[in-house]
Amino acid sequence: MTYSVNFLPHNVRIEVDDNESLIRAAMEAGVHINASCGGSGVCGKCRVLIEEGKVEGGISEHLSQEDQEKGYRLACISEIVSDLVIRIPVESQVDTSRLNKQAVSRHTAKATYSNVDELRQDGLFIPPVEKIYLELDPAVEGDNQADVTRIINHLRLNHDEHRLTMSLSLIRRVPDIIREGEFNITVTIARPVRKDGKNLIVNIEPFDTSDRNFGIAVDIGTTTVYGQALDLHTGEVLSQHGEFNSQISYGEDVISRIIFAEKDGGLEIIHQKVIETLNKIIEKILKKAKIGRHEVTTITLAGNSTMTQLLLKINPSYIRRDPYVPASIMYPPFHAKKIGIGLSSHTIALVYPGVSSYVGGDIIAGIMASGMYRSSELTLYMDIGTNAEIAIGHKDWMVCTAASAGPAFEGGGVKFGMRASAGAIEDFAINPETYEPMIITVGNKKAKGICGSGLITLAAKLLETGVIDSAGKFNQSLNTPRIRKTEDIWEYVLVYKENTQIDRDIAITEPDLDNLIRAKGAMYSAALTLLDEIGLGVKDIEKIVLAGGFGSYVDLESAITIGLLPEIEPEKVTYLGNGSLLGCKINSLTNALRRDVANVVNMMTNFELATTPSYMDHYMSALFLPHTELNYFPKVKARLERLRK
Amino acid sequence: MTYSVNFLPHNVRIEVDDNESLIRAAMEAGVHINASCGGSGVCGKCRVLIEEGKVEGGISEHLSQEDQEKGYRLACISEIVSDLVIRIPVESQVDTSRLNKQAVSRHTAKATYSNVDELRQDGLFIPPVEKIYLELDPAVEGDNQADVTRIINHLRLNHDEHRLTMSLSLIRRVPDIIREGEFNITVTIARPVRKDGKNLIVNIEPFDTSDRNFGIAVDIGTTTVYGQALDLHTGEVLSQHGEFNSQISYGEDVISRIIFAEKDGGLEIIHQKVIETLNKIIEKILKKAKIGRHEVTTITLAGNSTMTQLLLKINPSYIRRDPYVPASIMYPPFHAKKIGIGLSSHTIALVYPGVSSYVGGDIIAGIMASGMYRSSELTLYMDIGTNAEIAIGHKDWMVCTAASAGPAFEGGGVKFGMRASAGAIEDFAINPETYEPMIITVGNKKAKGICGSGLITLAAKLLETGVIDSAGKFNQSLNTPRIRKTEDIWEYVLVYKENTQIDRDIAITEPDLDNLIRAKGAMYSAALTLLDEIGLGVKDIEKIVLAGGFGSYVDLESAITIGLLPEIEPEKVTYLGNGSLLGCKINSLTNALRRDVANVVNMMTNFELATTPSYMDHYMSALFLPHTELNYFPKVKARLERLRK
Repeated sequence: MTYSVNFLPHNVRIEVDDNESLIRAAMEAGVHINASCGGSGVCGKCRVLIEEGKVEGGISEHLSQEDQEKGYRLACISEIVSDLVIRIPVESQVDTSRLNKQAVSRHTAKATYSNVDELRQDGLFIPPVEKIYLELDPAVEGDNQADVTRIINHLRLNHDEHRLTMSLSLIRRVPDIIREGEFNITVTIARPVRKDGKNLIVNIEPFDTSDRNFGIAVDIGTTTVYGQALDLHTGEVLSQHGEFNSQISYGEDVISRIIFAEKDGGLEIIHQKVIETLNKIIEKILKKAKIGRHEVTTITLAGNSTMTQLLLKINPSYIRRDPYVPASIMYPPFHAKKIGIGLSSHTIALVYPGVSSYVGGDIIAGIMASGMYRSSELTLYMDIGTNAEIAIGHKDWMVCTAASAGPAFEGGGVKFGMRASAGAIEDFAINPETYEPMIITVGNKKAKGICGSGLITLAAKLLETGVIDSAGKFNQSLNTPRIRKTEDIWEYVLVYKENTQIDRDIAITEPDLDNLIRAKGAMYSAALTLLDEIGLGVKDIEKIVLAGGFGSYVDLESAITIGLLPEIEPEKVTYLGNGSLLGCKINSLTNALRRDVANVVNMMTNFELATTPSYMDHYMSALFLPHTELNYFPKVKARLERLRK
Repeated sequence: MTYSVNFLPHNVRIEVDDNESLIRAAMEAGVHINASCGGSGVCGKCRVLIEEGKVEGGISEHLSQEDQEKGYRLACISEIVSDLVIRIPVESQVDTSRLNKQAVSRHTAKATYSNVDELRQDGLFIPPVEKIYLELDPAVEGDNQADVTRIINHLRLNHDEHRLTMSLSLIRRVPDIIREGEFNITVTIARPVRKDGKNLIVNIEPFDTSDRNFGIAVDIGTTTVYGQALDLHTGEVLSQHGEFNSQISYGEDVISRIIFAEKDGGLEIIHQKVIETLNKIIEKILKKAKIGRHEVTTITLAGNSTMTQLLLKINPSYIRRDPYVPASIMYPPFHAKKIGIGLSSHTIALVYPGVSSYVGGDIIAGIMASGMYRSSELTLYMDIGTNAEIAIGHKDWMVCTAASAGPAFEGGGVKFGMRASAGAIEDFAINPETYEPMIITVGNKKAKGICGSGLITLAAKLLETGVIDSAGKFNQSLNTPRIRKTEDIWEYVLVYKENTQIDRDIAITEPDLDNLIRAKGAMYSAALTLLDEIGLGVKDIEKIVLAGGFGSYVDLESAITIGLLPEIEPEKVTYLGNGSLLGCKINSLTNALRRDVANVVNMMTNFELATTPSYMDHYMSALFLPHTELNYFPKVKARLERLRK
């Protein structure tokens, strides 16, 4: 159910979902309401007048009895339950007109989902491991072919299955299983990548178990490992769970993990750590979905090249040493149990191939999930994180590269940086006259810090209102106590300590902004360098796919304003979420993808930015908001000029 | 060097090799010399007169000074060192003429050898596992492809090697090995059966080891296991060794082994036993040939279906139970170490496929070694042993069956039966007047017993001289003390105890002959039944291939006389020796064979004699010497008539 909300005096109307909070609706509409506490109802600043309709809640000790009777409510704790007309108290007429001019509604990217029905329609809903129930003729005098031969002949004659093979360890179990099931058995067949490859029979069970066929998809992130349990019969995600990668205790980033792995016994330890994490996740998702371990026939995993090599216990040392060589980019299917994964001995593990030391299987998985390799539109794929991986291309060619962006997008190197968990400032607006903030936190809790998407919006809004300049420096002449110098560092106070969870003022500092500029600069210049190398420009990009942990919450306008994304229509940007996990899921549902993956990896040209001379120039030019070359961002330029008039 | 020997008064001339003993030359020529002790010089009966030329030795205490001076020598201890004219003392004129008529020279079958040069000429000398030395370009800035990619690309571009793949465990070792060898490495590649299959890189070593590529061929017999070490570079057999299968302590035959395997823990124990035997052999042949375990890239094994299943630790229970079903007939290549074989983790094991519970991989190996699957001649393949396996066919079709012959051919069920070791009576002739024997033992040692080939000749000669009738019963009216009744059983004394090693008279008894008749009857009737089923007759057979432990020593004429082999020209019979071992050797030298093996197994039609109604009739008719239906053996019939006139 949706309701219409009209914000006065701006006269901005927006459609919102049932039970949305009023302050989020205002933020979405681009309407400023002073709000310091993040939406937890404790600062009492977000007082609004309900002129028509009604809300649920909205009343606290911070609202006087008189105001309550007049119809005022606190926007942050008011739930929308009808069509509304809301009036925002403003401090002056100037305020009103500037606020109105400022109003820019939020555009987050549309999410892409894989569509099982589509796969089914195209005849591509063929999991890499399938189950088939067989009612064999029992062995009798005159028909005493070998047990294995009986199975293979039956599959050939009745199921059009060919090029079948079986491992020795399975053959060992056949004679007893076939008789336990009285010649009624279910065979599990692992499909080859190429159609003319071998179909490997990996398991045989007595009687009919063909409706119990499950897969697991896993993204092995440097920080977090996510897993999903999939029903390979319906394509449904049955359960999912994420855990911190317990390798973290041996280093936050891939380089420190590699250094640890180089120590005596280190590789074994760090390999075991990720296996532990993986097994914890598997246990949880199987329990939640009521699946037995022996019912999981396949697990698809993706990670960056270092995570992949540590998962597989392959010395990652040469990844971090010039000339940065991974052990392999392709890995054969193997038995999951072989590397210690807590699944049955017949479960087949598939690992996404990568391209280079710094463009790994996680990116390839995301590219597969995005479908860009099938599209004729020139697509820019960006995985935003500590390591910025970028691919550009379409069905005929593809190039990729990776840049070290630094941890700013993930809350690192930012004084009050944090992950996008409860209390993280995730959205922000600023009154262009009073410079008072409007703050929304994850979970509407009292503020604790700033997450990556919040940081981007913060920087954009501070830039738009002239609080900072294009170099990320504060305008020290503005008349607000929120801009101040603490310990020789300029900062803007977002939340005073009484409204925080941490009993300290939460501010954004010049070094924070500097780190953000470096991160976005690395990202943008990597894309620009790639485009340059292939003789194209930003204007040629027809589509952008964003992947990465926080992408779904990023306000696209803000991301463009700070020069993280090139200028593009918001509707041309789609958000993939965890592309690596999504790619693993799709791989579990359609074996056809595996040949495409090999093709993508083979056609992908990898550029090493370190050895691409133009990169450093592009990077230096990108260390401004939005960019040294404002002509790359004509609309941002125009808007900034208009706002600051 | 060969010499000519003329035996008088028979005037039979024969060419013999240097250093041959005179008694063996006489036996070969079909000339009778009384000899009781087996050729050890102790009975003194084999006195002959050297009329021309000279011999070495021939003198013992059993020869008087006078005889020595006259030129007499003991034939059994005389070595031929020049052309000779020899006179055999005879007891009467009749004797001479009959002896002369009797003279039938020995024809043993020609041996078949695999010819490496032939394989080389045909471009087929391609071992299933090859080594290639690569000098890779080192990884540098601008060429930092993944290590595995570098190897695969190099093989593709410089060695025309495609469809390459590598296991996870090898990928793990690549980064360090490639750098240890400073980018100079030797790759070991296991070939697929089909040309369009995958080439599996199974090992990588630093630097050039391509000239150290060795294979092992193993015949896993129920009784004996034989192994050979092969140089896969030259095709040479470098060493070989046989050991009793130490499973023997759990039963002599396959059925008792299966029964043991059915006990709790029995399969594991009996599996370990054959692995122990195998490892003992491997250790010996590698030591002898100075080969390191890691230098062995492939091992090919063959055995009957039970031996194969026990080797691979597959429950053999259903092999012995109606309807006699083996677990599998084909087995995939696997890592030898996986089943406990004491070789490196990269050594690939190949196991010969079988056809049914009683026609196993050993027979298929022999058929491959015989080349009959490439021939257009209708060939009868017989593996003579406790289990008689028979195949008939040529390049377009093939049928096979197995019969239980009983242990007579291997010395079992025979009162003085023994294996063909020192002291075993291996050849025999009989004076048709005096019924005195001419006996030759293995190694010319004092007699200890009778081996399989000796038994066949014994029966034939006794039949030819009328000592036994066609039912195998003794002619009790003959005037010789050698035919006698002991403990109610009729027998013929071969060697009196003073000339034996065992201090007992060695005799052949009616029950012995009965067992032999059953064994040869089973063998012959199996062949006849097969021929019947495919609408052919004995006369259609163009070639016979004999395989099995004792085949090389069998006198073909004798084998035909007793009705073990159908009547055929001796030159059409070839002897393969241990066909199973030979087949394994050839498989180690030419990978092309593996596709042929699959074709042979697929085109082979197996007949179960138990369910083939005509078998019992054929068997009953075959329980005579040579056969109830003498028309099957026209030449034998004619000779018997002539001899007994």
